[in-house]
Amino acid sequence: MEKQEVPEGMFEGVISRYLPDPSEIDRKKGIARKLMDNLDSEIRKRGIKADTILVGSIARGTSLKNSDIDIFIRFSSDYSREELERHGLELGFSIFPKAVPRYAEHPYVSSILEDTKVDIVPCYRIEVNSGTISSVDRTPLHTIYMQGKLDESKIKEVVLLKLFLKRQGIYGSELRTEGFSGYVCELIILHFGSFLNFLEHISTLQGKLILDQREKRFSSPVVIVDPVDSSRNAAAAVSLDSLSILKAASRLFFSNPDEDFFNFDQVPEKKNVFPERGTHLLSMKMKRPDIVDDILYPQMKLACRKIKDFSKINELPLMNIFPYVDSESITILMEFSSPSLPAIEKRVGPPAGNQNIVAFITKHMESEDYARGPYVEEGRIVIELRRKYTQFHDIFMENMNHINFGKNLNRLKIKSIISHNQEEIKKSDAYNVFLKEERPYLSSGKNLKKK
Amino acid sequence: MEKQEVPEGMFEGVISRYLPDPSEIDRKKGIARKLMDNLDSEIRKRGIKADTILVGSIARGTSLKNSDIDIFIRFSSDYSREELERHGLELGFSIFPKAVPRYAEHPYVSSILEDTKVDIVPCYRIEVNSGTISSVDRTPLHTIYMQGKLDESKIKEVVLLKLFLKRQGIYGSELRTEGFSGYVCELIILHFGSFLNFLEHISTLQGKLILDQREKRFSSPVVIVDPVDSSRNAAAAVSLDSLSILKAASRLFFSNPDEDFFNFDQVPEKKNVFPERGTHLLSMKMKRPDIVDDILYPQMKLACRKIKDFSKINELPLMNIFPYVDSESITILMEFSSPSLPAIEKRVGPPAGNQNIVAFITKHMESEDYARGPYVEEGRIVIELRRKYTQFHDIFMENMNHINFGKNLNRLKIKSIISHNQEEIKKSDAYNVFLKEERPYLSSGKNLKKK
Repeated sequence: MEKQEVPEGMFEGVISRYLPDPSEIDRKKGIARKLMDNLDSEIRKRGIKADTILVGSIARGTSLKNSDIDIFIRFSSDYSREELERHGLELGFSIFPKAVPRYAEHPYVSSILEDTKVDIVPCYRIEVNSGTISSVDRTPLHTIYMQGKLDESKIKEVVLLKLFLKRQGIYGSELRTEGFSGYVCELIILHFGSFLNFLEHISTLQGKLILDQREKRFSSPVVIVDPVDSSRNAAAAVSLDSLSILKAASRLFFSNPDEDFFNFDQVPEKKNVFPERGTHLLSMKMKRPDIVDDILYPQMKLACRKIKDFSKINELPLMNIFPYVDSESITILMEFSSPSLPAIEKRVGPPAGNQNIVAFITKHMESEDYARGPYVEEGRIVIELRRKYTQFHDIFMENMNHINFGKNLNRLKIKSIISHNQEEIKKSDAYNVFLKEERPYLSSGKNLKKK
Repeated sequence: MEKQEVPEGMFEGVISRYLPDPSEIDRKKGIARKLMDNLDSEIRKRGIKADTILVGSIARGTSLKNSDIDIFIRFSSDYSREELERHGLELGFSIFPKAVPRYAEHPYVSSILEDTKVDIVPCYRIEVNSGTISSVDRTPLHTIYMQGKLDESKIKEVVLLKLFLKRQGIYGSELRTEGFSGYVCELIILHFGSFLNFLEHISTLQGKLILDQREKRFSSPVVIVDPVDSSRNAAAAVSLDSLSILKAASRLFFSNPDEDFFNFDQVPEKKNVFPERGTHLLSMKMKRPDIVDDILYPQMKLACRKIKDFSKINELPLMNIFPYVDSESITILMEFSSPSLPAIEKRVGPPAGNQNIVAFITKHMESEDYARGPYVEEGRIVIELRRKYTQFHDIFMENMNHINFGKNLNRLKIKSIISHNQEEIKKSDAYNVFLKEERPYLSSGKNLKKK
């Protein structure tokens, strides 16, 4: 494929569409300043050893339009975890009395102010390379580290990279996405100088993305050592699938550089998806558990992987598995290439010279499940047996207890509704998202490009 | 499994059932003597440089009841191949004027005399280790080699071995059977001393059966150097499947020593074969070509292997393939685990970082077969496409030309009748033999034991 030149002015057009106006930034920084002043006076009033800091992309100037405001309260490490959490919530509620608490590493307070989401998050005040007490403690150091490093032109490169990743569904380090965090984007631009330099590098990259080739400590697909904590890989969240998508997308971009690679909010609907798949669907639906996404999504992925393993061992012709989450429920959609299994199965025994041959043959020939054989295939004894279940529905009903869905989902799976009503499943949101991949959030369902 | 003692007198009972009476032997040897006298006088009358010799199991005393008489005419190597063949046929017809010629390495004459089949076969007279002109030339040397080596007790051991192999469908070196020839059975008894010694060896054998462990020239599963031609492996015909069957059968025998392991002509019909297999059958039937079994059967096996390969590449869920031959036609029976393929298929592309990614994605997304994707699975780009054919019947009709059935069958396969009429196939002989394996002759259909 010929490599094409990026059309002149294309990046400027993209940036002007997504980079916030200076007035929006000023307004948000003003809101943040006021909130921090209020928090600081509450801190003084209560005699707490803490201060406040604006963090995140707004603090660093690399935000897109409509970004959240993230204010951290840095507590002295004299406080216990319990004291930090209690003071953190009390301070948050002191300025947002009606807010609801949320839960990540610590509980924190979140509210909406003038259409902008504001999070007030407690952490410990630490120094560079001093070791963290909780994982959020590094966040203020990231903001301090970036101060003065990103001039206006670098900020634009960071924004281009974020948009490109967002369009591919691989922006964000949360476990739902397993992609690149904003901070990682900034480190990448500091290293490569520009979005295009980085994309050129990715488009011919074989294997892992490791910024410092001498770095051997980390086994992740992407390795970027955190400058504020050299014991940590800042890009540890990026999955192999996310890196793979980035590689393919970079080649696609250079073959046809187009604004469409950045317009994440204007993804055209796929028109030519073929709906008459001639496959057989099974859906497993359960109540959405009351756990945060960073716990829910890894369990969904685990469940899908375990169902895949189970299907392989039991010779179920599983073509696709698709996890789907909405506000009320979670669904695991399975697609099979045949409507059921035959009534018999081949049981492949040991090699013909093995000492267990007699036991294998005797056991199965005397079994009431015996169907045909024994015979020899590729040096092994084979006996055909009747299957207990031939319907996928029955097989999963029977074996649910033997498939590990993870701690929280294991409790719910026994109450899940397993349906093989094809018409009903085809009308479900899960199936329609699967078919069009409009909301790709797991490895098996991510778009590269839509025309 | 405990090893059981062989019941006293069992072998004697078996031998008396299948070893011919001395009167039968005398009668057959008398017939042979008379025929050879006639042939010898014809040879003298015509001034041909040749003599006659009785070969095969009757000559060596190791025959079962109802064995054929094999008389070889040994010609001087002064004769050309054409002269040998012409003289051989003329001499045969001089004593059997109404016989029909048959074809193996050379044409020969076969007839029935007093219920006994008699073959008159021409060959060249050669010396031990002098190299053969045609492969039948060794046969007289085998008979001469065995003279005086097999006493009455050894003969009984040879007969036991032949019966045991016959019962498992692995007696005979023809390519239909790929088993142990009578001569190989005799060499085995000379080496191991008795049937039980040999079977003990086999029952714990791992890997190949090689009589002289220093022998490294041959790659076959069974290696027994021919004492009359040290460049040749006398057991070259034995397939891995045949050796595997023998290994399993030997362990089964020691776990339950029973006359049933020798009664090849009284195989009880399997009663518990389960007929409602819930599978989907396809039969491919063609005229039986006018070629000898040693050419036909290897081509049938080749065709089955190629169909297996084709099915694997094209993701057809082939469970079993069964070749069936009768006097008029040959049939290849296929059994699938699903009735058809889905309307779509997953096309797995190169790894995401590969330079051909753009071409792969562009080609398939712009194709009218496009169905869904692209997405990433295990680091590779996957696109789903519509299948051209979903019915196995259509797939084989369309691809017949791309599957190699061997020289003779390739000419016939284009005229073959491919049927997916399940009821009709289930009534066919091919299917019923497949189901009960009453006539196992290929690797996938050999019995180990029937109760």
